[in-house]
Amino acid sequence: MILKDTIVALATPSGAGAVAIVRVSGPKAIESVADVFESVKNKDLRKQKTHTLHLGYIKDGEKIIDQVLVSLFKGTNSYTGEPTVEISCHGSTFIQQQIIQLLLRKGCRMATAGEFTMRSFLNGKMDLSQAEAVADLIASDNEAAHQLAMQQMRGGFSNEIARLREELLNFASLIELELDFSEEDVEFADRSAFRDLINRIQFVLKRLIDSFAVGNVIKNGIPVAIVGEPNVGKSTLLNAILNEERAIVSNIAGTTRDTIEDELVIDGIGFRFIDTAGIRETKDVVESIGIQKTFEKIEQAQVVLYLFDSLKFKVQSSEYIIEIEKIKNKYPLKPLVVIINKVDLLSEGELNEITSQLETLNLKLDPSGANWHLQTISAKQNIGIEELKNALLSFVNTGALRNNETIVTNTRHYDSLLKALEEIQKVQYGLDMGISADLMAIDIRQALFYFGEITGQVTNDELLGNIFANFCIGK
Amino acid sequence: MILKDTIVALATPSGAGAVAIVRVSGPKAIESVADVFESVKNKDLRKQKTHTLHLGYIKDGEKIIDQVLVSLFKGTNSYTGEPTVEISCHGSTFIQQQIIQLLLRKGCRMATAGEFTMRSFLNGKMDLSQAEAVADLIASDNEAAHQLAMQQMRGGFSNEIARLREELLNFASLIELELDFSEEDVEFADRSAFRDLINRIQFVLKRLIDSFAVGNVIKNGIPVAIVGEPNVGKSTLLNAILNEERAIVSNIAGTTRDTIEDELVIDGIGFRFIDTAGIRETKDVVESIGIQKTFEKIEQAQVVLYLFDSLKFKVQSSEYIIEIEKIKNKYPLKPLVVIINKVDLLSEGELNEITSQLETLNLKLDPSGANWHLQTISAKQNIGIEELKNALLSFVNTGALRNNETIVTNTRHYDSLLKALEEIQKVQYGLDMGISADLMAIDIRQALFYFGEITGQVTNDELLGNIFANFCIGK
Repeated sequence: MILKDTIVALATPSGAGAVAIVRVSGPKAIESVADVFESVKNKDLRKQKTHTLHLGYIKDGEKIIDQVLVSLFKGTNSYTGEPTVEISCHGSTFIQQQIIQLLLRKGCRMATAGEFTMRSFLNGKMDLSQAEAVADLIASDNEAAHQLAMQQMRGGFSNEIARLREELLNFASLIELELDFSEEDVEFADRSAFRDLINRIQFVLKRLIDSFAVGNVIKNGIPVAIVGEPNVGKSTLLNAILNEERAIVSNIAGTTRDTIEDELVIDGIGFRFIDTAGIRETKDVVESIGIQKTFEKIEQAQVVLYLFDSLKFKVQSSEYIIEIEKIKNKYPLKPLVVIINKVDLLSEGELNEITSQLETLNLKLDPSGANWHLQTISAKQNIGIEELKNALLSFVNTGALRNNETIVTNTRHYDSLLKALEEIQKVQYGLDMGISADLMAIDIRQALFYFGEITGQVTNDELLGNIFANFCIGK
Repeated sequence: MILKDTIVALATPSGAGAVAIVRVSGPKAIESVADVFESVKNKDLRKQKTHTLHLGYIKDGEKIIDQVLVSLFKGTNSYTGEPTVEISCHGSTFIQQQIIQLLLRKGCRMATAGEFTMRSFLNGKMDLSQAEAVADLIASDNEAAHQLAMQQMRGGFSNEIARLREELLNFASLIELELDFSEEDVEFADRSAFRDLINRIQFVLKRLIDSFAVGNVIKNGIPVAIVGEPNVGKSTLLNAILNEERAIVSNIAGTTRDTIEDELVIDGIGFRFIDTAGIRETKDVVESIGIQKTFEKIEQAQVVLYLFDSLKFKVQSSEYIIEIEKIKNKYPLKPLVVIINKVDLLSEGELNEITSQLETLNLKLDPSGANWHLQTISAKQNIGIEELKNALLSFVNTGALRNNETIVTNTRHYDSLLKALEEIQKVQYGLDMGISADLMAIDIRQALFYFGEITGQVTNDELLGNIFANFCIGK
């Protein structure tokens, strides 16, 4: 980590667009750009105020590379906490390259992935978990993931950790003080208040650790397996669910997102539909070699949709029922939505017959109904789709999200929290056993270490390297 | 064209990156953003100075969408010549969409393609040919095309046209004055000075029209056909030429351009290698059905590379020579580079024999040698590649470019120049014939019209629509 360098990188997505931004940060950022910048008003960049914009030309000797707009951030008043210049140029790849090459020749060096954000952390502009949230924020493609990343970036998570750490630190210092007076057998740290704190910390840690399941699901999308014969209407169903959402996106010309097949956002929550091609290639899937594939998919999923064609129910009902039984018996706690498709083609009597059979099955397999939902739909006629969406959402525990609680989304944080909990449990055990202050102090220090790892108070080069390697260059 | 609207669009390439820019322009740009922006320093955007940067949050009610940096351009001090705000946000597609949707709800509307630049033109910040150069600048992917676009954007072309137009306008008004005094038979306009001007205008117009051939080639790349048997080493040759250039590009991590196969930039000039797959599928291409394809490719090309395997020359020399003769006879003025490949595997004697045969052929087909070049190479050993590049460059007339002359690159300008020349020639004819001032005035007015079309002094909605439809949204 050499912060003496001045780094440069393209901050906007690569490729041609109207505008591109070349970002320069470091002690010589302003000088480097000033050397190649000719203001239209003959201003010297070095003498301008921070947070000002300047129109001019980037010149390589006498050759004009582009007309640009330069943003100036002086002193520590920038994202990185060091002098920064952002050059807003015309968005041709050629121009971007020319400007970057010119600055490299002027003594800047190419920024590594995430280096701007790493500098922000090293310069104390944000803690480590906030820095990590920046990458999550950029990667977030749905409302819930975005909200979590934003909460974390604004310090929601760090604040909770920091509060606990501070309280623990207070007790730690009292206990360490006792060590100095160990011969006098005094207790500076009130053991009952300490026990309270340890309990509170355990409670919070457990809640945070628990929240990771939700956080992970929200960050990466909820995996859903669709099980059913080929041609049962899976694509039509996905399209029916997707339709509305697509309409919203296409309102904005020029921002069409690349369609990721089978990934849907419903009410701000991402759902990943696991590729179900190849399921039930033979007639009786559960008894055939297809069974393994199907169960692999169900294994990965958090919710299972069992889709069947109501018109075939008369002749195939026993096969359908056996399949449903096998799935539910193997994964009794995994939410299962049994979907009766093509109900628009049934008479009321026929439909009643099917649903009553399935309700009997429901009572047998999942009497509470907590992990079972029966849904009649017509994917083609758009019947029952809204209800199906609500059913999917009801299986996602978003209570914590709605209540604005801190949710852990990062595997690294999760690991540190688990380790911290383990140490705190050792402390608790020590308290219960009445062990000596010096031994307890070791466990407390270790717990403090794991807390510090999360926010970056404790860190090392390897850890930082790993974290920022996942960033894009220019961030 | 309703300039009362406030427009919004994404200005950076779509997709995820570190940073994205949402651009807002129009009378209510600052108000619209101020309504959804919360400054970290509690500043009111409406009261800030132009060309300043402000950190804060974009909020939809209480919900924070993103932490952003806002650039403020007040009054006419902006690219568009109207109040403009640029919102620099985190580069997730989700955030970009959320911000744009929010501004749409606040009464902005989505910008159409090129609308920011069109407003710049309509608000008098640039003339039409400068506006067109903006699109060329963004599209330019090599040094020469970039330089031309930059020259045009800075008004080089417009200035030349405007000077001629003004002089012509002076004479036009004198001649129109004569019409008012037509009964007195006076000549306010000095006919000999007028004749001088007409001659000068014709000279300049012809030079500009001529330059279009070069300009077009530079803008779109120079088409080169490679003719030769399959497996003669075309790919190895292209790779050998490309190698150096690739190395330069890959110096800049994160800016890797999408490789356009067979498009190379040599010394700042783009070369398009016309797909030569399928040439010479049968043994004797010129006599077979392959001949038509080969000649079609040569037709499109500006330079022809005839590549053959020197090891096969002994047994196939007559076939090679017949092919070269046919090509040269059909296209005597088209530059031809005869390339002897695999020379590293030949003895000096063998090589001398081949070259002397080909030099005899050269003398027979192109005695001057102006459109003929013989090049020995080894694509594999990287022998003769530099010389081949120089040969290719020598066939490109870049004299005008090097001399910094105005070069026409735009088909629309070319058309207008042709029409203007035609009118000027009518004026010349009128002068020679001594026709009456009133008839001459009509032709002059028509010539002025075509001049005005280029710079946009004469325009209409349809023309503007066509021009800006080719822009990207956000520019």
